[in-house]
Amino acid sequence: MKFSVTVTLKKDVLDPQGKVVENTLQNIGMESLKSVRQGKYFEIEVSDQDPQKAEKKVDDMCKKLLANLVIEDYKVNKI
Amino acid sequence: MKFSVTVTLKKDVLDPQGKVVENTLQNIGMESLKSVRQGKYFEIEVSDQDPQKAEKKVDDMCKKLLANLVIEDYKVNKI
Repeated sequence: MKFSVTVTLKKDVLDPQGKVVENTLQNIGMESLKSVRQGKYFEIEVSDQDPQKAEKKVDDMCKKLLANLVIEDYKVNKI
Repeated sequence: MKFSVTVTLKKDVLDPQGKVVENTLQNIGMESLKSVRQGKYFEIEVSDQDPQKAEKKVDDMCKKLLANLVIEDYKVNKI
């Protein structure tokens, strides 16, 4: 069973990495660009067959390792 | 108009970063884990009103800066 996880910085947390990408895109002529925020993306495969158990496990992985809940949010989707 | 972009390594490209995450998760007791692949995630806001033009622009950004098409694939979604 395969899941995608996106981890993004919370709205009010500064994102210097995204800012650099934003500036670079503007410098190469992308004028209608308003903002860029960068995050992390994971594709996770687990061997559980029960969809609920599998999703619970991926959720655990996010809480324990992948996301820092103080400054980040995460989303899990089945793919 | 807001878009999400995910950039992932192509299937046959080695992903050492994902491997480290995978090993770490297994070390903290996630036994049913089969594999982890890591990618990049961007949230991009553009000021164009025309959805087609806006998506075209985001697609351009991916080709020019965000993704290395030799080893990476990308997906653009409106959010």
